[in-house]
Amino acid sequence: MTAEQVLEEAIDGIRGADCGAARAARAALDAKTKPRGSLGRLETIARRVAAVRGTAELEPLRAAIVVAAADHGVAAEGVSAYPQEVTAQMVANYAAGGAAINVLGGRAGAELTLVDAGVGAPVDHPHVRQMRIGPGTANIAAQRAMSREDAIAALVAGVSLSRELAAQSVGIIGLGEMGIANTTAAAAVVSALLDVDARDVCGRGTGIDDRTLARKVGVVRRALRRHAPNADDPVEVLAAVGGFEIGLLAGLALGGAAERVVVLVDGFVASAAALIAAQLAPDARQVMIAAHRSPEPGHAVALAALGLEPLLDLGLRLGEGTGVALALPVVQASLAIVADMATFAGAGVTDTGR
Amino acid sequence: MTAEQVLEEAIDGIRGADCGAARAARAALDAKTKPRGSLGRLETIARRVAAVRGTAELEPLRAAIVVAAADHGVAAEGVSAYPQEVTAQMVANYAAGGAAINVLGGRAGAELTLVDAGVGAPVDHPHVRQMRIGPGTANIAAQRAMSREDAIAALVAGVSLSRELAAQSVGIIGLGEMGIANTTAAAAVVSALLDVDARDVCGRGTGIDDRTLARKVGVVRRALRRHAPNADDPVEVLAAVGGFEIGLLAGLALGGAAERVVVLVDGFVASAAALIAAQLAPDARQVMIAAHRSPEPGHAVALAALGLEPLLDLGLRLGEGTGVALALPVVQASLAIVADMATFAGAGVTDTGR
Repeated sequence: MTAEQVLEEAIDGIRGADCGAARAARAALDAKTKPRGSLGRLETIARRVAAVRGTAELEPLRAAIVVAAADHGVAAEGVSAYPQEVTAQMVANYAAGGAAINVLGGRAGAELTLVDAGVGAPVDHPHVRQMRIGPGTANIAAQRAMSREDAIAALVAGVSLSRELAAQSVGIIGLGEMGIANTTAAAAVVSALLDVDARDVCGRGTGIDDRTLARKVGVVRRALRRHAPNADDPVEVLAAVGGFEIGLLAGLALGGAAERVVVLVDGFVASAAALIAAQLAPDARQVMIAAHRSPEPGHAVALAALGLEPLLDLGLRLGEGTGVALALPVVQASLAIVADMATFAGAGVTDTGR
Repeated sequence: MTAEQVLEEAIDGIRGADCGAARAARAALDAKTKPRGSLGRLETIARRVAAVRGTAELEPLRAAIVVAAADHGVAAEGVSAYPQEVTAQMVANYAAGGAAINVLGGRAGAELTLVDAGVGAPVDHPHVRQMRIGPGTANIAAQRAMSREDAIAALVAGVSLSRELAAQSVGIIGLGEMGIANTTAAAAVVSALLDVDARDVCGRGTGIDDRTLARKVGVVRRALRRHAPNADDPVEVLAAVGGFEIGLLAGLALGGAAERVVVLVDGFVASAAALIAAQLAPDARQVMIAAHRSPEPGHAVALAALGLEPLLDLGLRLGEGTGVALALPVVQASLAIVADMATFAGAGVTDTGR
């Protein structure tokens, strides 16, 4: 099979939500010793997971957070508060266990899968999966980020990784990322796909000042004018202004949807990837849960298009999958409620049906 | 010492926040491999805990969730969706491990302390601490809820329990509760202490209809007209319209503050208790963290008076400490960040000071 065929097969394999399983989960929750609906979003999350998994027999799921890293040629435009070398340094930090995602992912009981999707120079470490599409993208201010073939290769790398994780009984995949300047690429992707102005999707990323923000907006506008990608062709948008890690995460979401795995989406960059997946296969949205609300303005735009309401709002703007790691205990708790709580009948508690 | 003296001693023992420790925590966080402030509320929580504990040497703390239960004579007015017998039934459910707080508290790594502060008939079970002030309060529509002596006894029971927990190295105490009709008592307490109309603090509790809600508002108004407690005397407000579990939780917050223990406050009823504590000792607010935002309208009123912004907003309206159990992993994660993350210097990551 060609890469394009692998991608098409994954997209064709995505089915809609299992509404019967969601209804059965609601009935199970309504029998528990608590007023109907009183656990709020825990109950809606449990129903959603039932619809993804196709069963109301729920319990906490094995969870993996994928942190995909890549470099971005557009960093040369001075759009980030950090130099490009930090991408590789942070990958080494993840591999050594010292970063925020190591601490938070570990506490949440998630396995971490570190992926080099295209850092400038390869990070040689046994904990880093080499799925490199290239040594960083080209500078989108002057050139297309990557070829169409590379865009498809990045998507297919994500599809194959999600299949591998699903085969290991992983039921929740978290989308995390690292890449200096990747909020610029994500802003360009969201701007192109949804036809919104660059100003409405560009934010301060890791902490840029007003002047740098204005430059970032200008770079995104210029890139989109130059490449004018067709908004109806998400692969072209990815190739024109995206990133290797963004493509890999989009593929992970598509493969996860095909495998009926819950996809927990981190912040702005991961949501841009989720948006590419949803534009390629609208039913992929059914498996997605938004972990948290980022202060990046483009995140709200992407979430609205995805129809997702984030679980947490903690002012996180780090990426790496840190929001996923903090939301994961809430998702697992919702499943434990279905698995472990007593029923009115079982516990001898008066049920007024309210 | 008399009970009144024990209470006064606890109040006198409450000191303000340790700003030096908070500053040291900020410096420690700023050295970690992430942009300054990029972990949002995790960073403010870690600084707050440092200020409470008086040290920036932070790590996840031993945590106990206290679920205090009591009955309320005002249930006779038909203000709840559930009959009064459910209080004792649910205490038995907690003791047997079948309720939401058992599932969620267990997953969060919290110890549960079940306290009978005054259920109608005692629940005889080895897991239930007997700290009964009486067999439920009187119906506030007709009589004062309890005597001033009983109000002080409830507060002192909480103070002594917090001392006991602190002596066992518990560093985080969660305030949870159960008591049919206790949102009516909480509404009356908040209405009296803050001089707000009953309509603005009465909500649907576990799920009452419009007619019952109107009755609830009327009952609170009538009780406050009848007893007219002095808003400047929180003990009198507690005695006039409060509850045994509300008094015990208020004492727990006061004792926790005196012992420099973090007090994690659940929903509306627990916040009414926290408000009594804060009115008795304003510095007690420094140790409080609001776990979540409840849909009860009175909760927002109480939180604003306490100056607290909740961590989570998940539409929870169950009580029991379930919001505490879901917020606890976020608090512990913030402490683990300080304890376990690498520094820029240690990990060899370029620090641009942003």
